[in-house]
Parts: sequence; C-alpha cells; structure tokens
Amino acid sequence: MNFADRLDAALERVKTPALVGLDPHLDLLPAPFAVARDARAPRSERADALARFSCELVDLVAGKVAAVKPQSAFFEVLGADGAVAWEKVVAHARAAGLLVIGDVKRSDIASTAAAYAQAFLEGTPGTPKEHLCDAITLNPYLGSDSLVPFVESAQRSGGGLFVLVRTSNEKSGEFQNHGEPRLCERVAAAVDSLGATLVGSSGYSSLGAVVGATHPEELARLRRAMPRAVLLLPGFGAQGASAKDVKGAFPDARRWWRGALVNSSRGIAFAWREKAHAGKSWQDATRHALEAMIGELSSALGS
Amino acid sequence: MNFADRLDAALERVKTPALVGLDPHLDLLPAPFAVARDARAPRSERADALARFSCELVDLVAGKVAAVKPQSAFFEVLGADGAVAWEKVVAHARAAGLLVIGDVKRSDIASTAAAYAQAFLEGTPGTPKEHLCDAITLNPYLGSDSLVPFVESAQRSGGGLFVLVRTSNEKSGEFQNHGEPRLCERVAAAVDSLGATLVGSSGYSSLGAVVGATHPEELARLRRAMPRAVLLLPGFGAQGASAKDVKGAFPDARRWWRGALVNSSRGIAFAWREKAHAGKSWQDATRHALEAMIGELSSALGS
Repeated sequence: MNFADRLDAALERVKTPALVGLDPHLDLLPAPFAVARDARAPRSERADALARFSCELVDLVAGKVAAVKPQSAFFEVLGADGAVAWEKVVAHARAAGLLVIGDVKRSDIASTAAAYAQAFLEGTPGTPKEHLCDAITLNPYLGSDSLVPFVESAQRSGGGLFVLVRTSNEKSGEFQNHGEPRLCERVAAAVDSLGATLVGSSGYSSLGAVVGATHPEELARLRRAMPRAVLLLPGFGAQGASAKDVKGAFPDARRWWRGALVNSSRGIAFAWREKAHAGKSWQDATRHALEAMIGELSSALGS
Repeated sequence: MNFADRLDAALERVKTPALVGLDPHLDLLPAPFAVARDARAPRSERADALARFSCELVDLVAGKVAAVKPQSAFFEVLGADGAVAWEKVVAHARAAGLLVIGDVKRSDIASTAAAYAQAFLEGTPGTPKEHLCDAITLNPYLGSDSLVPFVESAQRSGGGLFVLVRTSNEKSGEFQNHGEPRLCERVAAAVDSLGATLVGSSGYSSLGAVVGATHPEELARLRRAMPRAVLLLPGFGAQGASAKDVKGAFPDARRWWRGALVNSSRGIAFAWREKAHAGKSWQDATRHALEAMIGELSSALGS
C-alpha cells in the first residue's frame, strides 16, 4: 500500500502531525545507557545500550504519533554493531505500529541509488521485512536521474521518500537559494513532477519533501509548488521553530493534521536535560515534552 | 599526517592516478561468490562472500594504485552483515598499504555531520583504527555549515574529504549547473575556501572535490577554481570518459600523476564480463583491465 496513504491513515488515528526523531547521540544518553559511551566496553554492549534507549523511546511515543525518524549517523558511529542496533530499533518501531522514516539522506548515481533503495526500502531477496523502513530521506544534488531509482523502488514497494528541498540549518540558503528561480524551487518542481506517479487515494504523493520549519515565510510558497507532497518539517523546538511557523505547510483546514510532519528530535528525546523538566525521570520528561508539542501544534493549527 | 600529503606520497610510489572503485554489486559477482545473491543463504554468509570478493580485488590491485574507493551502498544492501563486510574490506585494504576513500556521500546538519565524521574518519573512543577510512565523499547540498564539522574532524584526524561538485551522471547539470554563476562554481569556491586550513606540505588540500571525468570541457575551469584541491574523477571507462578527457585536472606537467585520482569501478572489478576479456579468469581480466587503464593514463597524461 502506498506510503502516503498509510501515513494519512496513521495521522487520522493520532490526529497530530508530530514526528519524533530518534537521534541517540552517544554523549547525551541518560545515565542508565551510559555504557554506550564507554570506550572500554565491548562495542556490541555499547550498541545494545543505544538500541535499548531508542526502543524505550519508541515505547514512550507509540500510539501518540504516526511515525518516528531514526537518524542513521548516530547508529553508524558504532560501526557494524551500530547497524545491528539500527535494525533492532526499526523492527521495534514497526512492531509498535509506528511508521519508520529512515533519516539517511542518501544520494548517488542511478545504479548505486538502486542499491540504496534495496538497502532501505525493498530489500534484496531474503531481507527480513522488519528491517526495512517505510520511507527514507534523500539528497537531490546529483539531479533527478539520481532520484528515479528510488521512485521506481517506491512504486514497487509502497515505500516513501522525502527529498531535501530547503533544510533547517543556518546556512541552508547558501546553495539552496542560489540562482533565479532559486535552486530549491527547481528541486521542488522536480519533486512535484516525479511524484505524480506516487499519488495515492489520499491525494498525497509518497514522494515528499523536507522543508525546514525555520523558514516560515517560504513554507507556503514551497507548499504551493508541491501541492501533493507530504512535507517533513525539521527545526521545531531545539532548532527554534514554533507551531505557528509551520502553518503554511498544512493544506487541509478541517483535518488539519494531514499533509505534513513536524519533527522534533532532541526536544523530545533529551527533554530531561532541559531546565523546564528538571527533577523528572527522562521518561517523564519525554512524555511531557511530547504532550506539550502535540498541544502546541493543536492550538496553533487546529483552531 | 595530512591526507593530501599521504596521498601525494602514495602517488609518488605508484606513479599513476588510477583509483579502483570497490562496487561489489550482488548481481555482478563472479561465480565463486554467487552465494552473495542467494536469498536462502544466511545473510552472514552472503556478506562474507561480498567481503571475500572485495578483499581479493584489493589484493589484485595493491601496490599498483594509491587508493581504493569502496562504495557503501553495495555493502548496505546486506544490512548489519554488510556493515561487517565493509569493516573487513576497509581493514584489509589498509593492511595492504592502500588508502581507503569511503564513497558514502553523507550529508546532514552540523551536529549530525559531526557524528558521520566520527563514524568514518575519527571514530568514537574505542573504535578500532583499522575500520576507519582515510577519506570519504560528501554531498554539499545543505550548505558549507554542514561541511565544517567534517573539515574540523579532518584537521584533528588527518582525514580527507571529497565534496561532490560536478558529478558524472547524465543529468548532473540539472541542479549543479543552475544559476549564474553555476551552482557547481559556487560549491567549488566554498571547497577552495574551506580547504585552506587543510593544505599540506605537498601544496594540496585534504578537502578535495568530485568532478566527473565525463565533463572534460569543465574540468580545467573547475581545476582553476580549486587549485589546491585533490580532484576525484569518476566516469572513466564504463561511464564513457577516456584518459584524454581528464588531462585538465592535472596541474603538474613533470610529476603528472599528482593532484587528481581517476576512478574506475566496474571497468576493473567486472572486466571479466566484457567481450574484450572473454575466456579469462575474473582475476586475469581485472589485472589486464587495470594495466590497460594505467597504460592509457600514462600515454595520455605522461607525454
């Protein structure tokens, strides 16, 4: 089944566009998982702590959000053992009923792109389905021919894709705003065009786009350029964007939670490190931070 | 020691800029490694066949070239077992005296980029050094602030970086040639500027650039924009570029093998599949294809 449709159904159940990023940064893990940063511990034990933290985090948010977004880099730091942890976390999140958006930002020429699509969306013959992601993020710099193998894979597998269009970091405009029209508008036009074959019965396309919530003035414009794309909006919370900043991404006034995902990673997973949550367990801090985020989105978008 | 200097010393030993790509595409492996594509075989055995093929390939080219370039995607298709194979191949190539350029094309915002730099160049405390790459490839779409953590990591670790500037695929110009000046020239200027702190005693910078050999008319221009960058030139052989096409990348008339690397992946590893090498073992075909490439480069560039 088409990813955009599966996501739409999941959003309809939870009625919030909140997306939780799983960024198990070694240096930020709560004390019970400190072995993950212990250089003397066997790497497999360290990776196991990374997986346990991420799986507990999944359990805390399951049923409350439609999807989670594990960040590959924080698993790759522990090499092959980190890859084992990644597979555990993906399988655990899927079993918990969450959609999994692998934040891998892969990119390569077509023959190699096809291998990445196999790795994350389709598998090779023999790949356990529970290790696969429902969707992944992609970098478009190489050109639309580098995206086509992923689109073809999504057609076969029902997977989803989120192409970086306008990212949330400070200097994202340096290249993404280059030229006239701006590069990000060119990329948005390619996303809209390539995504036509992946539009589901929900009206949304499984070829989505990443647009930073830190650029509210641009969101509405890029939304118009990609009316059918599911937008993934990083930058909420720790990176400074608020619920009001993302309003332009949501086209549906009544079922306001449809069509975009608002991501928070550190603001949820590492809420216990913030003053506002002092004295709480990391689990309580996470629960409360997610409730606050869901409430903030509901107030800003649902009224 | 600075990557550019280590590479320069290695090039001085082998006196050829030939670079061998390790792209162990499951479907293309020679018969002795066919278990790699057998869906019924345990994944660990499949990955082991991938590693054995890649390590044999390393042994065939060791001493003849300065470096090899394993392509991450073809290991990631086998998940965590593929990651084990990647580490074996990287360690084997290093032990064979080759520099390892991990073709990973990673990119992310700064805090995540720092984790990727740890994963591939610096390691976390406890990472076995033999699993680390000497250099990796990067995608610049997010902006130069996404490259800075890699540059800082390279300053600490002596690692090298190759930023995608102008890739070898057919539609690479779609975004990379956008605007005036073209986006790739903007990226080239950023590479030149960011790379200033990584210039070694060789005069070359460890912040290099990927420029497709399939664009001979642009190579000279991009070389002028990045006079100190080591250029990594994909597109030779299977993708259609010849030795004459890469001439503009090499600034040193006398020690002509310095300053750039000419990559061939399938043309070497899968030479046995080509008519020209019919009847040979895959090892002989590989040896002969590499000798032919080295000879072709020498004739075109060394005279």
